[in-house]
Amino acid sequence: MSDFKVPVNDYLFLFNDVMDMQQNYQHVKGGDQATPDMIEAIFTEGAKFCENELSPLYQSGDDGCKWHQGDVTTPAGFKQAYQKYVEAGWPSLTGTTDLGGQGLPPSISSAFNEMLNTANWAWAMYPGLSEGAVATLEDHGTEEQKNIYLSKLISGVWSGTMCLTEAHCGTDLGQMKTKAVPNEDGSYNINGTKIFISAGEHDLTENIVHIVLAKLPDAPEGTRGISLFIIPKFLPAADGSVGDRNGVHCGSIEHKMGIHGNATAVLNFDDAKGFLIGAPHSGLSAMFTYMNVARIGTASQGTAAAERSYQGAAAYAIERLAMRSISGVKNPDGPADPIVCHPDVRRMLLTQRVIAEGSRAMICYSSQFADLYTSAKDPADKKKGEDRLGFCTPILKGFITEQGVVAANYGVQVFGGHGYIKEWGMEQILRDSRIATIYEGTTGIQALDLIGRKTLMDKFAQLKVFTSEMRAFAMPLLLSSKTTKTLRRYAWRTVKMSFKWQYLAFRMGLQAKKDRDAIGAGSVDFLMFSGYAFMAHMWMMMAAKAEEKLDAGEGDSEFFKDKLHTAEFFFERFLPLSRVHATTILSNIGSVMSMPTDYFDNTK
Amino acid sequence: MSDFKVPVNDYLFLFNDVMDMQQNYQHVKGGDQATPDMIEAIFTEGAKFCENELSPLYQSGDDGCKWHQGDVTTPAGFKQAYQKYVEAGWPSLTGTTDLGGQGLPPSISSAFNEMLNTANWAWAMYPGLSEGAVATLEDHGTEEQKNIYLSKLISGVWSGTMCLTEAHCGTDLGQMKTKAVPNEDGSYNINGTKIFISAGEHDLTENIVHIVLAKLPDAPEGTRGISLFIIPKFLPAADGSVGDRNGVHCGSIEHKMGIHGNATAVLNFDDAKGFLIGAPHSGLSAMFTYMNVARIGTASQGTAAAERSYQGAAAYAIERLAMRSISGVKNPDGPADPIVCHPDVRRMLLTQRVIAEGSRAMICYSSQFADLYTSAKDPADKKKGEDRLGFCTPILKGFITEQGVVAANYGVQVFGGHGYIKEWGMEQILRDSRIATIYEGTTGIQALDLIGRKTLMDKFAQLKVFTSEMRAFAMPLLLSSKTTKTLRRYAWRTVKMSFKWQYLAFRMGLQAKKDRDAIGAGSVDFLMFSGYAFMAHMWMMMAAKAEEKLDAGEGDSEFFKDKLHTAEFFFERFLPLSRVHATTILSNIGSVMSMPTDYFDNTK
Repeated sequence: MSDFKVPVNDYLFLFNDVMDMQQNYQHVKGGDQATPDMIEAIFTEGAKFCENELSPLYQSGDDGCKWHQGDVTTPAGFKQAYQKYVEAGWPSLTGTTDLGGQGLPPSISSAFNEMLNTANWAWAMYPGLSEGAVATLEDHGTEEQKNIYLSKLISGVWSGTMCLTEAHCGTDLGQMKTKAVPNEDGSYNINGTKIFISAGEHDLTENIVHIVLAKLPDAPEGTRGISLFIIPKFLPAADGSVGDRNGVHCGSIEHKMGIHGNATAVLNFDDAKGFLIGAPHSGLSAMFTYMNVARIGTASQGTAAAERSYQGAAAYAIERLAMRSISGVKNPDGPADPIVCHPDVRRMLLTQRVIAEGSRAMICYSSQFADLYTSAKDPADKKKGEDRLGFCTPILKGFITEQGVVAANYGVQVFGGHGYIKEWGMEQILRDSRIATIYEGTTGIQALDLIGRKTLMDKFAQLKVFTSEMRAFAMPLLLSSKTTKTLRRYAWRTVKMSFKWQYLAFRMGLQAKKDRDAIGAGSVDFLMFSGYAFMAHMWMMMAAKAEEKLDAGEGDSEFFKDKLHTAEFFFERFLPLSRVHATTILSNIGSVMSMPTDYFDNTK
Repeated sequence: MSDFKVPVNDYLFLFNDVMDMQQNYQHVKGGDQATPDMIEAIFTEGAKFCENELSPLYQSGDDGCKWHQGDVTTPAGFKQAYQKYVEAGWPSLTGTTDLGGQGLPPSISSAFNEMLNTANWAWAMYPGLSEGAVATLEDHGTEEQKNIYLSKLISGVWSGTMCLTEAHCGTDLGQMKTKAVPNEDGSYNINGTKIFISAGEHDLTENIVHIVLAKLPDAPEGTRGISLFIIPKFLPAADGSVGDRNGVHCGSIEHKMGIHGNATAVLNFDDAKGFLIGAPHSGLSAMFTYMNVARIGTASQGTAAAERSYQGAAAYAIERLAMRSISGVKNPDGPADPIVCHPDVRRMLLTQRVIAEGSRAMICYSSQFADLYTSAKDPADKKKGEDRLGFCTPILKGFITEQGVVAANYGVQVFGGHGYIKEWGMEQILRDSRIATIYEGTTGIQALDLIGRKTLMDKFAQLKVFTSEMRAFAMPLLLSSKTTKTLRRYAWRTVKMSFKWQYLAFRMGLQAKKDRDAIGAGSVDFLMFSGYAFMAHMWMMMAAKAEEKLDAGEGDSEFFKDKLHTAEFFFERFLPLSRVHATTILSNIGSVMSMPTDYFDNTK
């Protein structure tokens, strides 16, 4: 595969031109540090780290982690790369300044995380999981817990995990069996087994801080009876250094389809010592802090799959010679034309690119609300951030990870037979990308969250905010006589999408009144439609800005022309894919629900 | 994963009720043997072999083949299963009776091949590749070649391969470099390297007969200069036994995404002795015999992926308990409801099932034309078979293999996190299924064949035959007062699809006159639309027959009720997916072709 190159220009276009990040930073703690110069420096240096240290380990990391008697060895080079990462101060970009962090707004680390994911998905999950632990402790930890654990996590000297899933329950955490019994010293004695713990055991850090969900003896049934605990691999000594080994051990690591470089651990807690975070029985709501962070991180893995597979496929398509172009010879001196001349190859490449650039914009746009949510100076802004981010999150997670798989799939296809062979690296991207639609809540779960909690129970309020914003941007373009024919066409489609989105939500609400199963039957189609609509707004904004820059003769004109080519493909060929979802959302529910369970029984 | 069960009833429904196989068999050599009793006996015994011998080796076969100094060892159990397969006479079902074959029509082995593929895809490729070699030699071999090689291939004592691809050319065979120089004894001296040779080296048979494309010294440029050769691994001795080792050796086997149990060989031909098949420079047209066989076989791998992943996912969805049904508790005695209650899980399962059963019908329908093409008594029937099969083949290969990946993908998703873990077997189906849209001509190549040679160059003749047949079936249902409301709805949609299909082909023809690249830009969408239309005809036929049987009180009423449930999902939720292709076929070509090659260059 070709060398991976971080698209720094694309990030800068989004941060400096398309979104009004600087205006948003004025309302955010630490925002004054995030000047355009600072952002460019971070992205440029971050890109070097990703290109030089991480990306070269992407394919070799597929050899996987090794488990031996409870210890896990990560792939060759992973540990050295992690050390450089810590030494350069990368883990602490957004951490609180009191505890050694640099205090920058999360939007910056969100973009940096996408680079890390693209360069080396499996590796990036190690620091990625720590972020969840940091967010949980920042919001819900005691001062003492913060002093002991948070500073170590922010510096990256220790890493973190999130331990939710058990063999018999993933989505349905109410069925959890792990038990926590209070000790006399205020700590808890934890017993149980957790599975699918990403970065659950490894050799990168001297200690691992597990954030664990468990049930107290007096816990009510179901999800209201879950509490949250810190269970460090090594108990911290009085001086903050690593002390006694705790009763948590890695029983095995899973053999998976992909992300082989990240250890997915089975963790056995045998009389492990744990420390309660927050109030008893309130673990699940505390987890939502982490969930919001993790789900955006997972969404950016979809962008990563699209970007990496696009770069590989585009380079191959320029180089590989096969057949002559149907519209006339393009490479008369060679034995055949490069396959990038063939329309269907272009269709696949353009689809990948539309997904990569469009989803990057969606995440960047939403990261403004993450900034407000986590760091707003004014409580009203914090609330606004929470609401807007809450609406965007399931769309980002559900839609972008599904599209990441689509893009990775095309990456394989462009390579033909070579795409199926490990050596070329394309099939690995597809295998890696496939987990993203499952973990941190499957696409189905995101879809229920979006249509249920975030739309119907919200009485369409946030949907209205979003669609109003779409129209506020597109309508003036439609009405102005100065708008080019092309932009006018995009604006018209964006406006139509905004109305159709609201109409579909309204229709689903009506259907649900008649039959509650209608919510589930149409939910994933509604999620996907929402993704297309969201992305249409992004391409509308990007295309308008690119035209403006070209007119003004500012910046890199080739970059802006390319952006307009991609926008054209988006509105002509990609956006129409949304229509099928609009159709199926409204189809009859009986076709899904009328058959008895017995119908699915193969053994009868 | 649950035990795999061959859906024998479904095959019998298609063979005995839906299609008029017996009428077709009257026109086919060997057709008199293919009585309903005989067919049922073959399918029932075949199912036992698949369920008991092959399916248990599916997951263990994923450990892969081992290469050592040119020799390849297949996974444990593969060789023993192959021996049983040969001893039971399975390889010779359709072979010519003169050479020890049973002379049955190919439609029967086509159905049997789907069972083999579902039970163990990688294993089934070994005998599957032999079929291509058999077809090529039957049509183009000399009497002597048939006597020496064909009888051994028909009995399965030897196996065959097809050697086309070289490192720098797959689709574009005109660039081939392998050379054949005539020897004085009438044989040829072959030098070159072939890659991606499925079943290219293994330990199942005492000899392997490679059918190899190479160029003679006086070959014209391009594909018109390709000749076809037999190159046996061991040269046959005078008595027909295995003689001297020939100069063909396996340099390595590929590390692939899936189908690990089948060796994908790099074959080095170093002064290998070969024997010309057919006339010089006419190798490529001779290969088309094989291609037609192989492409249907590959299509059935799509069906196989859908069937196997459906069976696994359905069993899991009945067993796995998570969350409560949104429309009320379904399993009050358990801690949660089985996930099969959740609408989105049903949507995924039903999609898999619609693909499995619908594509099975498409292949069964087309296999009637394969019978005529290969074995018609009357030359006019043979021509009819060739024409109709020629039109169906790219749709079968392109559409069904793409849908197989969709189905396998849902199989993983229904399992949630467990779907990503090897142990459960679902991710393997996805990895295995992924090759099918690439080998034997990518989806893009099938699409060009369909819209180019088979539609526009055919002046829409075969498309007209197909769509007329759709209407001939559906119109009387629309017009009859006895038709149920449900069937009338299906008939109406089928008629609409038939007209829309013709309209889209016509519009593509018009576009192509203005811009030849329009063919390529819309070709895959046209292929996919064609697949939906074809499948609509199948579901129309199946639904009508199921209603008829239920009305008459004949047969297994539960089977027919289930079939009608699946038909309802097809027409309500699956068929609408075709609309998006209709939209994009007609979108502007500039969005795909206007940007310069430089746009795709990441290094700039």
